[in-house]
Amino acid sequence: MEQTKILLDENEMPKQWYNILPDLPTPVEPPLNPETKEPIKPEELESIFPKSLIEQEMSSDNYIDIPEEIRDIYKLWRPSPLHRAHRLEELLDTPAKIYYKNEGVSPAGSHKPNTSIAQVYYNMKEGNERVTTETGAGQWGSALSLACNYFDLECKVYMVRSSFEQKPFRKSLINLWGATVIPSPSKETKFGQQFLEQYPDTTGSLGIAISEAIEDASENDNTKYALGSVLNHVMLHQTVIGLESQKQLEKVDEYPDIVIGCCGGGSNLAGISFPYIKDKINKKHDPEIIGVEPSACPTLTEGSFKYDSGDTAMMTPLLKMYTLGHDFVPPSIHSGGLRYHGCSPIISRLYDDGLMKGRNYHQVEIFDSAVKFARTEGIVPAPESSHAIKCAMDEATKCRETGEEKTILFNLSGHGHFDMSAYDKYFNKKLGNE
Amino acid sequence: MEQTKILLDENEMPKQWYNILPDLPTPVEPPLNPETKEPIKPEELESIFPKSLIEQEMSSDNYIDIPEEIRDIYKLWRPSPLHRAHRLEELLDTPAKIYYKNEGVSPAGSHKPNTSIAQVYYNMKEGNERVTTETGAGQWGSALSLACNYFDLECKVYMVRSSFEQKPFRKSLINLWGATVIPSPSKETKFGQQFLEQYPDTTGSLGIAISEAIEDASENDNTKYALGSVLNHVMLHQTVIGLESQKQLEKVDEYPDIVIGCCGGGSNLAGISFPYIKDKINKKHDPEIIGVEPSACPTLTEGSFKYDSGDTAMMTPLLKMYTLGHDFVPPSIHSGGLRYHGCSPIISRLYDDGLMKGRNYHQVEIFDSAVKFARTEGIVPAPESSHAIKCAMDEATKCRETGEEKTILFNLSGHGHFDMSAYDKYFNKKLGNE
Repeated sequence: MEQTKILLDENEMPKQWYNILPDLPTPVEPPLNPETKEPIKPEELESIFPKSLIEQEMSSDNYIDIPEEIRDIYKLWRPSPLHRAHRLEELLDTPAKIYYKNEGVSPAGSHKPNTSIAQVYYNMKEGNERVTTETGAGQWGSALSLACNYFDLECKVYMVRSSFEQKPFRKSLINLWGATVIPSPSKETKFGQQFLEQYPDTTGSLGIAISEAIEDASENDNTKYALGSVLNHVMLHQTVIGLESQKQLEKVDEYPDIVIGCCGGGSNLAGISFPYIKDKINKKHDPEIIGVEPSACPTLTEGSFKYDSGDTAMMTPLLKMYTLGHDFVPPSIHSGGLRYHGCSPIISRLYDDGLMKGRNYHQVEIFDSAVKFARTEGIVPAPESSHAIKCAMDEATKCRETGEEKTILFNLSGHGHFDMSAYDKYFNKKLGNE
Repeated sequence: MEQTKILLDENEMPKQWYNILPDLPTPVEPPLNPETKEPIKPEELESIFPKSLIEQEMSSDNYIDIPEEIRDIYKLWRPSPLHRAHRLEELLDTPAKIYYKNEGVSPAGSHKPNTSIAQVYYNMKEGNERVTTETGAGQWGSALSLACNYFDLECKVYMVRSSFEQKPFRKSLINLWGATVIPSPSKETKFGQQFLEQYPDTTGSLGIAISEAIEDASENDNTKYALGSVLNHVMLHQTVIGLESQKQLEKVDEYPDIVIGCCGGGSNLAGISFPYIKDKINKKHDPEIIGVEPSACPTLTEGSFKYDSGDTAMMTPLLKMYTLGHDFVPPSIHSGGLRYHGCSPIISRLYDDGLMKGRNYHQVEIFDSAVKFARTEGIVPAPESSHAIKCAMDEATKCRETGEEKTILFNLSGHGHFDMSAYDKYFNKKLGNE
């Protein structure tokens, strides 16, 4: 059998992130102050973000150095392996070649530490002592806790109440790395208190948790807020995924015809695809780029491209993005990481400009694909990542029909070790088909 | 910072397992028929094991080829990375160098697939269609399910009832890869029925589950039994771990002064240490080898070296081994994989001959070390593996006191993603200190 995994040595890990902003054919529109509706000034963001991240958010540099302290932590698990899915190809009887980047090898089990490590590093450099954030199923909360552990910052995670109660083990991970996690809405913020008075039985939402984390960061000294997706600097940090994959594919003399990532806020899709979109913009190559969403939360595929707020309390700057509306409450599908009403402004722009395509799938077909993947490649995939798997399988199946020998690359954004209850429901036929 | 991970390419993966049997200074004593107390004949074992494994069990060849079909599956995750624990060393302020082999990268999350893949392969080659086994916490059951999935054999797992009820997620893994898992004692075997009649409220034990799995294999056509530890052929298959580690350490010009593995039945300790014990026997090197046990089940350190049965119903051949007695019921510590009354006859022999040392630790100090490891190296370790971590930390701390720059190697046999409830108990101070 040909090579199964393509590895890079630590010294082959990228030394810079790729910033797509200056390459965009249409520039992204600026974030607006939610009260004045005027473009926000960098200094207005300084109450919640460190200056270096605000600079990155608006940078016109094409490449940004990855500081050595960040690279040293990345090396605990990076470069992540690129796998050739021989057994999945055999199952599908396809002439296509399927490759996947395995971001599940990080300590937190997903691609999220690529940006949490960077964000906490810059906070540490600027003397901040504490960061706050929200988390849904807990992928981002655990990644931020891991990062704060390394740079010795305090970390407070507002976790959507329904997940806090139903998904105890990512909460345990957050505790293990030393952060504090409380259910949201909480009594510890004014917004949380108000919300609880009005809706005492609420199970919470990501939008509410964001509002609480931002309020906490704004009102406490030396405290900043950290967001795990959507913003430009988050997309930037994730490009290490795609840059590594390019070096790995070069080693086997391949270039992808199709690049696939699941898409919630957009960070793992950005990570795997932006370096390929650069080639597309520069007319060096013309890969098809596909963002895959749950049918239950079809932001790109069925939302509108307009200015909207990132949170329920409308505390965040207004972002021009694909959105289902900041008051949209998606059904409680198991892909908690894809249940966000909005999408990265850069990805929204690329989608609107036709540089990316979108697709959405229902929950049961996602788990059908996840099980086929686990039984061929061995790895138990996260439900979120299984959206990318399903799309890759569909594309490979098309190749069987057309005879095309396409090279397909997808990002396996994380493992599903903390999602086994969802697999149980699938096998017991108790999984809703939202 | 110096290199963090030492990787091997797939083509550097060992092509043979190392068989220590012909190198042993004192030969292991033969297994005895439990009824006649006479040395068992190979053909007597054929009702429960395939011939090729019985041959390996008694082989005098020093190296045994790893068939290509097995190597192809190993390549899904092997060679496993060797990590240098820089951050743990810093925490301990030690001049020692700490390396660990990360077997948690396998799909089942432990070293167990190294032998399950091999065992199921040989069963498939001999035309068997079904295998049975027991499992405690589920590491071995999930590894065997994974293997049966690849070679298209049916798999039936008898899971200790208390784990079946309290640890649902390894059960989910077993289902995911296609095996059937039922709580033991069950009504599906005569022994299980009898036991349930006598003790209707029993929570089961590993010894009972082994009896059921063996009965099932003996009484059903084309069905064999598979054991995840203790036996010589299991130790053999695990040597791929130590052989890889030798190549990896050579790349950084190192040889360990101390080699450490946790020890229940003994397979991961055998895997990491036998290639080094070969060097010790041949007087090429003189590393210290340490097997680490829970104080709650101190087989090597406090048991007796004698013939004993491997299961409760006394259906297995009698093995000359260190044992706490086949009716010993250890306290319900979270290191389910180390709760076995006996130990590999080869390891027992090496221990008795002074070629290995033993040590035992209490549960709370194990979790203290696990948390320190997770906060430095990032990885969440399995409680079992944390016994090796604790010992490595103690040895490195001694080096701080003596100033010795020892090279310490330990086996991280698995991750702890399915053990988070134990971490919760630790943080809530509800963990017993057995």
